[in-house]
Formats: sequence, C-alpha cells, structure tokens
Amino acid sequence: MRNIAISLSYDGTSFHGWQIQDALRTVQGTLQSAACTITKEPVKLIGCGRTDTGVHARRYIAGFRTNCEIPIERIPIAFNSLLPDDVAVFAAQEMDDDFHPIRSCIKKEYTYEVYNSKFRNPLLATRAYHFEGDLPLEKLRRAASYFLGEHDFASMRSTGTNVKSTVRCVHSFDIIEHESALSFVICANGFLYNMARTMAGTLFSVALGKISPDEIPDILTSCDRKRAGATAPAHGLYMTDVTFNKLII
Amino acid sequence: MRNIAISLSYDGTSFHGWQIQDALRTVQGTLQSAACTITKEPVKLIGCGRTDTGVHARRYIAGFRTNCEIPIERIPIAFNSLLPDDVAVFAAQEMDDDFHPIRSCIKKEYTYEVYNSKFRNPLLATRAYHFEGDLPLEKLRRAASYFLGEHDFASMRSTGTNVKSTVRCVHSFDIIEHESALSFVICANGFLYNMARTMAGTLFSVALGKISPDEIPDILTSCDRKRAGATAPAHGLYMTDVTFNKLII
Repeated sequence: MRNIAISLSYDGTSFHGWQIQDALRTVQGTLQSAACTITKEPVKLIGCGRTDTGVHARRYIAGFRTNCEIPIERIPIAFNSLLPDDVAVFAAQEMDDDFHPIRSCIKKEYTYEVYNSKFRNPLLATRAYHFEGDLPLEKLRRAASYFLGEHDFASMRSTGTNVKSTVRCVHSFDIIEHESALSFVICANGFLYNMARTMAGTLFSVALGKISPDEIPDILTSCDRKRAGATAPAHGLYMTDVTFNKLII
Repeated sequence: MRNIAISLSYDGTSFHGWQIQDALRTVQGTLQSAACTITKEPVKLIGCGRTDTGVHARRYIAGFRTNCEIPIERIPIAFNSLLPDDVAVFAAQEMDDDFHPIRSCIKKEYTYEVYNSKFRNPLLATRAYHFEGDLPLEKLRRAASYFLGEHDFASMRSTGTNVKSTVRCVHSFDIIEHESALSFVICANGFLYNMARTMAGTLFSVALGKISPDEIPDILTSCDRKRAGATAPAHGLYMTDVTFNKLII
C-alpha cells in the first residue's frame, strides 16, 4: 500500500479546528472527504497534530495510505480542484511504510502573531492578536529565554488531553519585530495542548507587569497552570513548520 | 456646525461595497449608523470614493457634519466601540467648513496585491489575486510606464457611472516585489470606475503575452475598453492612501 504525505496550508477561521467531528466543518474532515473522492477508497487521513478553531497553518503535514495509482505529482492538483478556498495542498511525497504523521514528527514550529497598536486593524481581525499596550522587547526576550531547553511544561498547557509526559524541549523562541507587529516563533520537539498559546499569554502578562520575567523558572518548576498567563486567543496562532526524517516537501 | 474627517480601514470581504444600499451590509451604512448613535443626530456620512464588494481599504477618508460636542480625540474610540471587527476608525480631525471628502481630494493611491505561485494560498484567498503564470517584471514595468502622466483613460474603465471627463493623471505606478508576490502601487489625481482593476488586468494580459507593452499607448488613444485586459478581481484591490489639503490624520 502506498504511504503518502501531503503538505498543506489553511485559514482556520471558518473551520471547527483540525479534528474530524460529525456535522461540523473541520480541516481533517474536508481533506479526508477529498482524499476519498480522489482515490475512490474509504481513506483515513491523519494529521501531524490537532489545531483548535481559529488556529491557522502555513505548513502542516498529513498522511494517508492508498492503493490508488494516481501519479504523485497529480495529487496536489487533484486535492485543490476539490478543496474550498480556505485550504490548499502544496506538495505530495511517497513515504516509507513506517512514516506516520504524528509518531515520525521530530519537531514543530508555531508562530504567534501580535498586532501592536492603539487601534485594531480590520484586515488582521482573524489573523493576529491585537495587543494595545506597550511590548517591552528586552523583557519579553528575557522571559522567553527561560522557556528554552527541556522543562516540564505542565504549567503552560490546558488539561483535557492524555499525555504520558509533560516534559518537552523548546529549541528556540524568537521574537521578531515588524512594523506595529511582533511574531513569537517557537520551535520545540513537541507541544502540549495550548502550550504555544499559554507561553504567548504569559509573555502578555509580562508586558502588562503582572509577571516578572525572572518568575518564569519558578512558574515552570511549580507545574501550576494558574501561575502562568491566560491562554492567548486562537486566531493569532499559526503552525508554521513541521520536520520529519526523509520528508523533503 | 462642526465638519469632521475620519480616517479608517476595512476588510471589504463581507461588505457589499462602500455605498449605502437598503437592506445590504455596506461600509458607509455601517459607519453612518455608528455616527448617528454617537452624535444622536441623523448624520449623513460621506466617503472619498466608492469601492466595490470585496475591495479593501488600508486608509480611507470619510466626513460628516454635526452639532454634537463630543471631543475630537474621543471620536475614534466611540466609533470602534460600535463598529464590527472588519472596519475601524484610526483618527479624527476637525476640518474647515469647505472640506468635502470627494471634492477636496487631491490624489489617491490604490494598491493591487498579486500572489504569484503555482498553488493558491488559503491565507490570502480574500486578500490577493492568485496569478499562477510567469510575471516578467521588466515587461510589466515597461507596460506600466505608459500609464504615467495625463491620458484619456476611457479604455481602462467600466462604464456605468457618469463622469464629465475620462482624463486623469497617473503620478506613479510602482511594481514592488515581495516573496511570491507583487504589489502594483498606483497613485493618480483620480480614478475612473474600475480603472485600477482594468490597468492591473491589462498587466496580466501583458504577462500572458496577449498584449505587448508597446501596444498600450495605442490602446489608450483608441479609448476602446475592449482592447484592454479583463477587469482584475476585486479582492486584490486596496485603497491605500488619500491626500487632502490640511488633512494631517
């Protein structure tokens, strides 16, 4: 059986998140239905992670197994002819039999987009979180530096999913300045549920003076979710990269 | 009576254009209704020009007259507390009695955003026109240069509005390269109906080899709309600047 990976992008605004749910419009449901039409098989399409309602993806990897003989280079075109405007497939690749979109994932990158201005920007209403106040870069970068490395991130996640361990390794946490905007670019070997949004929300608490940067090691050690900042809104978050061995698309 | 100018921005996707229409959601209707609530008067709100369904504005100027004594610096906040997410007021200014949003306008800038890639980008579905083919910059810039200066632009507009003259002066037509994208930034003393979109569509015909750059002077002279390119789709177009004497917001 062929094991196919596809790379895709979506605007999460009008989807009820990634995961398939009866009668709701989801990214997985929309793609799986297209995959079934293309292959004429009851395909099961698996994604590299769940994203919530409103969360976007610039690069997301999904996979499916099929006996269908469609040439690999036709797959993106076949998907895009069936998909709505808010999701598109960019590339497809034939993978080894042991490739799995979740288990084979080595690292992920999420980006949290912040629009920082006195007034909200209507063209970014569903694209970036509007933060009115001052964003003191040096303090934010100092706070972010404490997330680097291997830690128990139990204080930086929402409960509701079962995970064996809440230890993750954050490889980088870059804060990039644009005109009236900041991007928090976070790369890790994995993310707990709402971890990127909680780290972003904790930086907003730092900006507001509610949390001092140097408290963060203590918050991490406490494993107490109540000590971190609020979960930042979904619409600022983008999955921006995912890395797998032997995946070149 | 006070004569107030406001600067604003909107995402045109969910509006039926600028101009007020019974029972339809329009930018003018939405703003005018907010202005009436704020001033408690039957305010008439006038814009600096019509934009079609799907066309966006990064900077748009409107005006209204009122006896209401609300402090000028409170006006943006008052509007934004009433407006939906897809439109926002950035600033307000007290103008001389002779200021008029259409008659006092000296020049306007429109930007046409093009996403140039093999596959469409779901995050730009309502934000930029997706052009798949090659966009030869040198040819496009040569074509655009023929629009500069004063010409009769009758071949570059849609009919349907009454204008005294179809002569306009294009001050600049810059083509700016970004990653997988181009912006056509067009500044003129005024724009005929669909003029920016027809000039953009003519550049796409040049890119496709259907029109040669050096034909453009002849197309302008002919005043024959059928010889220009198709009207480019609305969702790539943004009003990006408007200039008035004594307006500093």
